[in-house]
Amino acid sequence: MKNFLAEISVLPIKEILDPQGKAVMLGLNNLGVGGVQDVRIGKRIEMRIQASSLEDAQKHVELGCKKLLANLIMEYYEFEVKEI
Amino acid sequence: MKNFLAEISVLPIKEILDPQGKAVMLGLNNLGVGGVQDVRIGKRIEMRIQASSLEDAQKHVELGCKKLLANLIMEYYEFEVKEI
Repeated sequence: MKNFLAEISVLPIKEILDPQGKAVMLGLNNLGVGGVQDVRIGKRIEMRIQASSLEDAQKHVELGCKKLLANLIMEYYEFEVKEI
Repeated sequence: MKNFLAEISVLPIKEILDPQGKAVMLGLNNLGVGGVQDVRIGKRIEMRIQASSLEDAQKHVELGCKKLLANLIMEYYEFEVKEI
């Protein structure tokens, strides 16, 4: 068995309003951080996983994203798996 | 002015327990996603920003992370800025 690190991002899809991101954008402007045009906020997940191969680890991560981590109606996910 | 996209990750530091991550790890095991050793959950922020140069954009993002996005006692951040 090898050890892998999966870095997963889950973000709201473009068609969906992101009120948390809007609030942060206004907050940044009020704090004097200029030039911010748009902010979108999602989840970042770091997962340590044991598997026999990279393909196997990717399959596990994909399954986890679909079953638990992302709500595919409102969110999309992307991930990268590397051996550690 | 040029347009930049900043991809920011804010994660709990290693010394701090992450109960949300622990719950997700147990959930994944119960769902039959095997081999998961550890899960840590943080925020992923995508920011569109206008600035005169890459260095300028990076400075703005750094300031935003320190002032608003990350609580440096419990979290650390990392980011990447690229021109779009």
